[in-house]
This record gives sequence, structure tokens and C-alpha cells, in this order.
Amino acid sequence: MDSMATQSSAQIGNEPSPLLIFDALNGFQRATALKAAIELEVFTLIGAGVTTAVELAKSAQTSQKGMRILCDFMTIHGFLTKQDGTYGLTRDSAVFLDKKSPAYMGSIAFFLVHPVHIANYMDVTAAVRKGGAVSEHGNMGPEAPIWVDFAKFMAPVSAMGSAAMAQIVNAPGQPMKVLDIAAGPGAYGIAIAKLNPKAEIYGLDWKNVLALSIEHARQAGVGDRYHGIAGSAFDVDLGAGYDLVLLPNFLHHFDHATNVKLLKRVRAALKPGGRLATVEFVPNDDRISPPMAASFSMMMLGSTESGDAYTLKELDAMFRDAGFGESAAQELGPETLVLTKY
Amino acid sequence: MDSMATQSSAQIGNEPSPLLIFDALNGFQRATALKAAIELEVFTLIGAGVTTAVELAKSAQTSQKGMRILCDFMTIHGFLTKQDGTYGLTRDSAVFLDKKSPAYMGSIAFFLVHPVHIANYMDVTAAVRKGGAVSEHGNMGPEAPIWVDFAKFMAPVSAMGSAAMAQIVNAPGQPMKVLDIAAGPGAYGIAIAKLNPKAEIYGLDWKNVLALSIEHARQAGVGDRYHGIAGSAFDVDLGAGYDLVLLPNFLHHFDHATNVKLLKRVRAALKPGGRLATVEFVPNDDRISPPMAASFSMMMLGSTESGDAYTLKELDAMFRDAGFGESAAQELGPETLVLTKY
Repeated sequence: MDSMATQSSAQIGNEPSPLLIFDALNGFQRATALKAAIELEVFTLIGAGVTTAVELAKSAQTSQKGMRILCDFMTIHGFLTKQDGTYGLTRDSAVFLDKKSPAYMGSIAFFLVHPVHIANYMDVTAAVRKGGAVSEHGNMGPEAPIWVDFAKFMAPVSAMGSAAMAQIVNAPGQPMKVLDIAAGPGAYGIAIAKLNPKAEIYGLDWKNVLALSIEHARQAGVGDRYHGIAGSAFDVDLGAGYDLVLLPNFLHHFDHATNVKLLKRVRAALKPGGRLATVEFVPNDDRISPPMAASFSMMMLGSTESGDAYTLKELDAMFRDAGFGESAAQELGPETLVLTKY
Repeated sequence: MDSMATQSSAQIGNEPSPLLIFDALNGFQRATALKAAIELEVFTLIGAGVTTAVELAKSAQTSQKGMRILCDFMTIHGFLTKQDGTYGLTRDSAVFLDKKSPAYMGSIAFFLVHPVHIANYMDVTAAVRKGGAVSEHGNMGPEAPIWVDFAKFMAPVSAMGSAAMAQIVNAPGQPMKVLDIAAGPGAYGIAIAKLNPKAEIYGLDWKNVLALSIEHARQAGVGDRYHGIAGSAFDVDLGAGYDLVLLPNFLHHFDHATNVKLLKRVRAALKPGGRLATVEFVPNDDRISPPMAASFSMMMLGSTESGDAYTLKELDAMFRDAGFGESAAQELGPETLVLTKY
């Protein structure tokens, strides 16, 4: 220890630093504090011109001290600006965390920092030993209530990529029969229905989640062309003759063999010549880039029995093993859209 | 949403990004995964030449998949390097996370990611409303068992600053009677005893913690000059005639009035002309810098009834209100040493 102290005096600016370690170990404070700021609508209030801790505390009905500490913490971590005691929104906070913004996604905090979700990561040591979620099914139990929360709270995220995806996969002016597997909030299928008035969408999910997809389709004005298939993608009748099957954020929950089994069923449901559109967090072969996609492996390790974030090579191998032809990938925000030939 | 997608195609590299938001909300994964890597001794193994996921899994008795995901995650977050499937230590990991390093501080994970500690931050919204810890006493209940864990696990952190502090406050060759308030692992007082053979240290802490300070003093070979005072600093007899009183990381647990009450007792225990040495995380007046000290307010909001990270002005006001003279501050790693005249 004495040598450390001497060293740090001698090598100021280049000495070893434990800051990154502290920062990581205190990471759950960042998660729960951001959730609190979203829950207390701090970003929305600041966007509306309530910009001091005293005023914010009054509007949000909190203590002044707590609000000051929360806003300073949000500033330190890049979610607010502070000038002479007055807080302001960053560009990203204004776009994504102010409820008045059309791209508001604050609701994701209520899933990503949900006690049931967090519980999956409380013993990463055990998950690493086992190679998967420590609880029996992770989040993957049939009709797990967390998926209703997921569909509700994570809707803004799928909404982000869905419009871009719809543009890419749409066959303008032509009828399309589309199967959306594990539709969740329904965004991907609905985006196609909005773009193509001749598209008929079949959304598949567990019954309790499907109610939400159907409601979203109705709200989007495409309810008459949105059909529900309730059940598990692994054993419900998928229907047949699809031009396009969507697999948004589904394959990462399972291992290669399970996915091949599913993909064979999917291929059988496609028209010959139809296409498969997969949306996934796809890490590069180095598995450490890009950071968000590569980090997604940890998300799966903690919350699924055998899921993972798959590289393009690994996805291609699944598709080939299920009888599919070649795949082409393109970026879709932080995710990747993989289009695969029949 | 449609406008978002269009915008991001048009303004690549400058478009709004939710990455910081995801990163923060997933922050607890970073905390618990780093704890797992420390617990599984991944850094120590890599330091010893076990550098592939397969070998590491074998040595640490984990699944290969889990180890691969953990090491990739550690790499993404800056704690490991990866080249052609081989992991390496970063400079900071080698210094602080390899058990063979004298500056090893991996044990801090077992406090900072302790379930009892984490529980304080699970409802930041409620803490912000209240202006303090939601549980009755936060961590501050008398003889709370977490403080024994704290003293054990956080010892490397106080060890870092203690040697440098001892150099500054020591009166070489002269007898010193030193009171170390809330001694915890005892590092600050022990560092003075090691430097000055004529120093007599009186370590004060709750009985269950004090046993550890005394044991540490014995291990450091200064046990014969280390005396325990068991109890609360607010009502136990502090003794008298001290040349120096140490207040390392204590004032942040309480509010101004409580601290003034304590500081009056402390001043009464000093020799006239004695000095007070306070070690604290001290934010600048802007309360958002430096980041580690400023973030410490959130640590206190969640875990104490009325604590905070105090600015120099606020500390000076407490000292003045208790009758002390002027203070001078200097950096002590991420913390600040404040020397105050009688």
C-alpha cells in the first residue's frame, strides 16, 4: 500500500486508478437513480421549464435535498446539464426521456430495472457456473407475467427499428401475408401493415401478450388486417403460405438445436420463395464489439436457460441447418436485420 | 418513430442515441458481473497465465459458455483485453483485481454489491421523496452487522489514502496521542503508528467492528500502541489530551447539526493547539465535480437518514460552528484531506 501512495505521487496522471472499478460496482445506483428520475418525470418537468432543484422538488412532491442529489447524479452521468444551479436536458434526454417527445422511451426503465429482471443478475457467479439462468426457466416460463410488462414497457425500442425494417422488407403495392413470431408489442408487423394496405399480419405470442399486440394494431388503425395466433411458436399451428416471417428478438432466447427446430417449422410455413426477416443483437466475431450487441450475451446468460447473442456465422449456421438459403445483414440501429432466402 | 428512422439514416454519427440510457439501466449487470469475475478469481487466474475461456472455465469450475460471456463482458467494460480469443489484464485490473497484487481491492465488491447495501438503492424514488434512506436507519443502525463487512471488505480503500495521510499529519520523532473516530478497519490510525513509534492510537468504533481494528493493529505490529474505545462517537467517553483526532469518512453520514454536536465533543477532547484531520469525498461547489466525490451524495441519500457529500464550504461551516479555527484541504486520491486548527 505504501508503494501505491509513493507511486501515485510520482506518476500523477498516469497512475493506476480504481475509478472504473468503483464506477462499475456502483452501477446499480445509476440504473435505479435513472429509473427514479424517469418515474418522477424529472426530464419532462425540465423540458417544461421547471429547472431548479427547489422548483422540481415542489412539482414532483419530493424533498429538496433528494431532488438536488438526484439531478446532480443525473448530470454527473450525462443525462442532464447544470449551469449556475439550473438544470437542462441533454440532446438525448430531450429526445428519449421527455414524455412530450414522440420518441420517449422512459418506460424501458420499468422493465430493465424491474425487480424480477434484476433478480436474474444478483448471482452472476452461479449463472456463469451453470451457463444460464439460475432460476428454473429464467424469464422463459410459459406465459411469464414479465412478458406482458416487457411488451408494454419495451414497445418504444421495437418501435425504433420497426419503421426502418418495414421500409426494407415491404413489397409495395403487393399483397403480403406476414407472420410475426413472438410479436410482443406488435411493432414490427404493425409497421408493415401501416406501410402496405394489402399486407395481412398474423401476430403470434402467448395469449396474455397477444391481447396487447392486437390492441396496438387497433390503435394504429390496422386492426382489421391483424390476426392473432395464441400459443408457443414451438407447437402452435403457424398457418401456411406466408410471404414473409418476422423473427424479431426471439432466437437469442434459445440454443442452436432449439432454434433449428423452430426454423424448420418456420420454413414449412413460408411460401417457396418467401423470406425470413430476423432482428437480433449481433456481435462481431470478436464477441466484444459493437458494445451494445456484444453485451447482450450477459443479458441472455442471466435471464435464459440457454440463450445467447449470436454472431452472423452462428445465425447463418442455424438457418442453413433448417434448410434456408443465403442471408444478408444490415444495421437496424443497435440491432441487425438479417434477411434470409427460402 | 418514422421521423426518427429517417433522421438516423440522414445524420449518421450525429443522431440522438439511446445507448447511454441502456448502458445506465443495465448498470446493475456491470456491478454484479464484476463481482462474479472477482469472486471466480478470473483476474488472478489470467494474471497467472490462464487466458482462454476454456482454460478459465476449467480452473474456476464454471461452464465454458458462462466464462466466455463473463470475460467478453469484462472486456467490453474495460476490465480485460482480448486478442485472438486470449484474455489479458488491463493495467488497473492487474494492480487492483489480481489477488497477487499488493494493492488488490477486489474485496470491495463484496460490500458495494452486498445485498443489504444494494437494497438501499432499489427504490431511489422513495429516497428522493423522503430525502434520505427509506429503511428506518439506512445502514446506520447501532452495531449494524454490515459495518463489520464494511470494515473487512473496504479495508483496501482506506489503506490507499491512509499511508499518504500519515505522511502529512505525522509529527516525526515526537509523541502523538491520536484518536481515530469510527476507525473501521483501522487503517488511518495504524498508518500513523507505523510511521511514528511514539504515536499512541485510540481507535473508536462499535464493539464488533473494533475487534477487527485491533486485530489489524496487531497484524501491523503496532498492537501494543493501539487502544480500543468501544461505543458510539456521540456518547462514549472520548478521552482527552489528543494531539490529533482523525475523522475518516464519518461526517458524511450525518447532517450539519449532528456533526456540529460531535465536533464540539471532538474539540473538547483535543489538546489546545491540537489538530483535526478529516477525510471525505468533497465535491466542488458545483456539486457535479469531481465525478466520484460528487456521486457520493447518492451513496449517502440511499444509505443514511440525513447524510450527504459536503463541500469544503459546508465542512468549514460545521468546524466553525463547533469552535474550530481555519481549515486547509489537499487531495488524497479521490478523497480530500482537510486539516483543521484547534
